Amino acid sequence: MKQSTSVIKRPLKLPVSIQAEQNQIYLSELMKPDPSDSAHFESDIQRKLDSKTKPLGALGDLEAVAKQLCIIQNTLSPRVVNPQLVVFAGDHGIALDGVSAYPQEVTWQMVMNFVGGGAAINVFTRQHDITLSVVDAGVNYDFPADCGVINQKIAKGTKSFLNEKAMSGAELDAALVAGEKLVAQLSAEDCNTIGFGEMGIGNTSSATAIISQITGIPLEDMTGRGTGLNDAQLDRKLSLLNQAFEFHGKQPDAKAVLQTFGGFEVAQMVGAILSAAAREMIILVDGFIASAAFLVAYEMNPGIRGNAIFCHQSDEGGHQTLLQHLKVSPLLNLHLRLGEGTGCALAFPLIESAVAFMNQMASFEDAGVSSE
Amino acid sequence: MKQSTSVIKRPLKLPVSIQAEQNQIYLSELMKPDPSDSAHFESDIQRKLDSKTKPLGALGDLEAVAKQLCIIQNTLSPRVVNPQLVVFAGDHGIALDGVSAYPQEVTWQMVMNFVGGGAAINVFTRQHDITLSVVDAGVNYDFPADCGVINQKIAKGTKSFLNEKAMSGAELDAALVAGEKLVAQLSAEDCNTIGFGEMGIGNTSSATAIISQITGIPLEDMTGRGTGLNDAQLDRKLSLLNQAFEFHGKQPDAKAVLQTFGGFEVAQMVGAILSAAAREMIILVDGFIASAAFLVAYEMNPGIRGNAIFCHQSDEGGHQTLLQHLKVSPLLNLHLRLGEGTGCALAFPLIESAVAFMNQMASFEDAGVSSE
Repeated sequence: MKQSTSVIKRPLKLPVSIQAEQNQIYLSELMKPDPSDSAHFESDIQRKLDSKTKPLGALGDLEAVAKQLCIIQNTLSPRVVNPQLVVFAGDHGIALDGVSAYPQEVTWQMVMNFVGGGAAINVFTRQHDITLSVVDAGVNYDFPADCGVINQKIAKGTKSFLNEKAMSGAELDAALVAGEKLVAQLSAEDCNTIGFGEMGIGNTSSATAIISQITGIPLEDMTGRGTGLNDAQLDRKLSLLNQAFEFHGKQPDAKAVLQTFGGFEVAQMVGAILSAAAREMIILVDGFIASAAFLVAYEMNPGIRGNAIFCHQSDEGGHQTLLQHLKVSPLLNLHLRLGEGTGCALAFPLIESAVAFMNQMASFEDAGVSSE
Repeated sequence: MKQSTSVIKRPLKLPVSIQAEQNQIYLSELMKPDPSDSAHFESDIQRKLDSKTKPLGALGDLEAVAKQLCIIQNTLSPRVVNPQLVVFAGDHGIALDGVSAYPQEVTWQMVMNFVGGGAAINVFTRQHDITLSVVDAGVNYDFPADCGVINQKIAKGTKSFLNEKAMSGAELDAALVAGEKLVAQLSAEDCNTIGFGEMGIGNTSSATAIISQITGIPLEDMTGRGTGLNDAQLDRKLSLLNQAFEFHGKQPDAKAVLQTFGGFEVAQMVGAILSAAAREMIILVDGFIASAAFLVAYEMNPGIRGNAIFCHQSDEGGHQTLLQHLKVSPLLNLHLRLGEGTGCALAFPLIESAVAFMNQMASFEDAGVSSE
């Protein structure tokens, strides 16, 4: 069987400060972190990385991930505990204007597929023992009670942002709070690593508008084929987005952008990301839509950046542009364009690998290997 | 616990033809492959891929892997059975001329680290339940009996290729046969998926020479820093390689190149790759050195290409050049430059994901999702 010693299910519930102290019992005296001196702590991390039986830096991006996890958890022995993936689903008024290759009912049908276990994200979270939660953030459908969907519905889809704001200020606030509360609950269940996925027909249009408004990157350089538009449909999508930009103008801040162009699933994800960062969780950022949510959250609190691991570069055209803008380089580039959090789930074993080598690999001294 | 239903340990031992028939009981009648018509079979694979609840092609590289596995195994329901990773270790005469940042004794010390469980490849193979074998193909050291190293020693290191051939023709043949026999044995134990790693101080010099001789890519465009050379050391490495090329001249074929510049670990890997392909196994190709071994094997039998999955693009300069030459795009690019087969082990869960989605994901019809 799999020896996933790096993933610990349901440990003792301890306050964060006590957990940090407990982690230190695994460390040599020399390597005990000193939280009062972050430069000193970072050199302790580097010393531990460089003591491992490999050429300096030879584990590449995994070393960067290991270092990041150490800093997030303030320990030289990071852990992944009760990993979770939350898929937020919501419908978009703009979908009815013809910006997607699929009809709007695919949103609820795919939500039923998620709770039925048949979607890609089910396969990959099962494979990696990640707990999956499916949230109705605002789907245009009445789900059966007890079907397994977490009901956080704000409304039955947003309004089309072609000629009005997608949601009211009250709806936006309710969505942010709903996302925040869900993560608070998962954190209380000892989860320290969380990824977010989404489902919502029309939401690449929403994400494109959000990213273009916040970064200033022109719509022309951002707008992609989503789930599979042809040339004529792509032209129509860009034309509708330009029309909406003319109607609404440049919005004053990220929250206004989210209210004007966002979806309920995107807004709940923003609240969830802010909540996860406040709880010093490891945040797995998926593809195009999830990165748009991250961007909004980052504008609201730039301090969240250190908690985020970008998992996958989507094949959706605008994603690479956004990643360059954020100066981040995702772990995977598998040409996915599916959403659902699939990039997070597929990158998850690499996070486990970073934790595992940091905790399990021998040092040159332990193994009796010449270091130069 | 991990639900790795895609990985089956120790199934019934059946001849390949009967296995293929058994797989077909999982398929709908419509999707039964017809081996007599490969174009028809490929369209059956594509139809199964496109029936899954996702936009067409949205799983990107995983769809390509799934398709390749179906073709290798002649089934629409591919499986990974008893995955194995074999690390071949050998010493190089050229190392004594000063082409590495590490002394030659690091080869045997790291072999002892492998059998002791402390190296990166131990961590990652444990994580993914891959069986690890460690082979002494020609290390300059007498390992203790029963230390866990498989003894296939051809000699205590090659000769320096500066002014003689690295190995004799008889040594080369013995190395090829040793690699071939080991894989035959693992295949008889029902393994159908195998990755190869290596350890050998000085072997980036050997691999650089091999690749440059076979492809015609100039040494200047291939020679990299290996495990961490500085500028002066890099100049020396390139100068020594040029000196060796002047002495030996262009070799007539891949086998002559391997004899002249190869290592025993590289030669055993060549035999192992040829053997694995002949047994229709899935072959996981690691980084720079392993790709040099693949290149030699490919020159000896181009038919092996369909069985190979390139796992990782190394940070060693010449690797990207070679991958472009082979027109292949690896699954991962994590800036590793470690060897040991670490790229294979880290990419392995993606192979499992490809198998899992092919076998477990619902179709549009099953899930009641609108496909357009």
